[in-house]
Amino acid sequence: MHDQERVWTAALAVIGDEILSGRTQDKNVAQLALWLNDHGIRLSEVRIIPDDIVKIGETVNELRAKHDYLFTTGGIGPTHDDITVDAIAAAFGVPVVEHPEARKILEDYYRDRPGGLTEPRLRMARTPEGAELLRNPSSGAPGVRMGNVYILAGVPHIAASMLEALTGRLEGGRPVVSVTIGARAAESDVAEMLRETEAANPGVAIGSYPFFKDGRYGANFVIRSADGDLARSTGADLSRQLRDAGYEPVDGGI
Amino acid sequence: MHDQERVWTAALAVIGDEILSGRTQDKNVAQLALWLNDHGIRLSEVRIIPDDIVKIGETVNELRAKHDYLFTTGGIGPTHDDITVDAIAAAFGVPVVEHPEARKILEDYYRDRPGGLTEPRLRMARTPEGAELLRNPSSGAPGVRMGNVYILAGVPHIAASMLEALTGRLEGGRPVVSVTIGARAAESDVAEMLRETEAANPGVAIGSYPFFKDGRYGANFVIRSADGDLARSTGADLSRQLRDAGYEPVDGGI
Repeated sequence: MHDQERVWTAALAVIGDEILSGRTQDKNVAQLALWLNDHGIRLSEVRIIPDDIVKIGETVNELRAKHDYLFTTGGIGPTHDDITVDAIAAAFGVPVVEHPEARKILEDYYRDRPGGLTEPRLRMARTPEGAELLRNPSSGAPGVRMGNVYILAGVPHIAASMLEALTGRLEGGRPVVSVTIGARAAESDVAEMLRETEAANPGVAIGSYPFFKDGRYGANFVIRSADGDLARSTGADLSRQLRDAGYEPVDGGI
Repeated sequence: MHDQERVWTAALAVIGDEILSGRTQDKNVAQLALWLNDHGIRLSEVRIIPDDIVKIGETVNELRAKHDYLFTTGGIGPTHDDITVDAIAAAFGVPVVEHPEARKILEDYYRDRPGGLTEPRLRMARTPEGAELLRNPSSGAPGVRMGNVYILAGVPHIAASMLEALTGRLEGGRPVVSVTIGARAAESDVAEMLRETEAANPGVAIGSYPFFKDGRYGANFVIRSADGDLARSTGADLSRQLRDAGYEPVDGGI
């Protein structure tokens, strides 16, 4: 039955030389993944690409066609290296325009701030023609929705506040439920048990993630399914097998 | 002159449902990026993809053709969800074989360890036919090189030790030198200065990264170039302009 359910998918394009140079540690992948899962949307792939207008356009056109939703992070600030809006407008074959509502938001935001609404700040009112705005409760300058493409800020706490403002507004399926079973077991010793448990429970995926803690090895086994009852019963089953085989449990994993 | 230099590029495929679900925070992108830069190789794109044999194969074949080097992380352990070797063998159109040298490494490694060399652990001796091994100084089971594809572990400290063992062995060009200038300036206030400075110094790219610290705004301006002298002179030039305009410097950035 669940195989016939529609699976909603999303992709993320992380735009930024600073991530590819190793200067900045990305934090948007994990936070978007968790947010999407709450909406029953699966993050299916991520691309991290440079601040290159052609590369951004190609990536956006490929991913927006393949997925229900495409998110982008980065490149929507006031400086010369912020070219995401231009690249996405070109990808859609539309001009960049000043969005009247975005201009009004920026006018209000900068009215009492030092410097006021300068020309560079006004760049943040530019959108592809036909776009809608995404509310930015934390720093004024809005995100942009163009078709199924959601253009978010790169700074993680600003991206997070844009997602918060979007919460509940995207259509999706059932969230994936994940159950984590931790045990003081070398994953290689229980590989067969994991394989058999996964095979015996169609609709679950079991991942195995070793850890080393307090001077001892162990592993977390993560059971994931859109069928929450199935995830939980499979978790209970695996937990019992691990105990029966003499492995010390680590409650809730690490 | 520098435009005519060969630019060496690499891509990274991060393989793992645990990254796409948000459960695990990736750390391999940044560490590989920094290691590559020391070798004069530019990390040009990253794909994060699920544990899916078809998707892995397609991604590997696309990226290994487009770049000098392709790195993968994840999916080379002893459990059923570790399918990277199988996927890459299929992508190359060769069978998976037991690599005699890898078997010997595992025999030695597990000789005095509890459980010994079990069948699941022996899975880690499997490679695409024709592959070479990458030394793993931290946990025995080797990485794999197949053509220009470097197959690393997903656990960051193990991937790091494989990279350390590879240090100095890859051909590249000149490392990119980056100079960071920090200032108590709103990036929008200096947007024009940045644009002009970049335009006046062909061969440099200037990135602008705002921060909020000690209750005040500021930004780091990162000047990057394969010409170290040019990066440094541009940095000194920008620094002088910022001081002349009255912005308080933040030495070395944040």
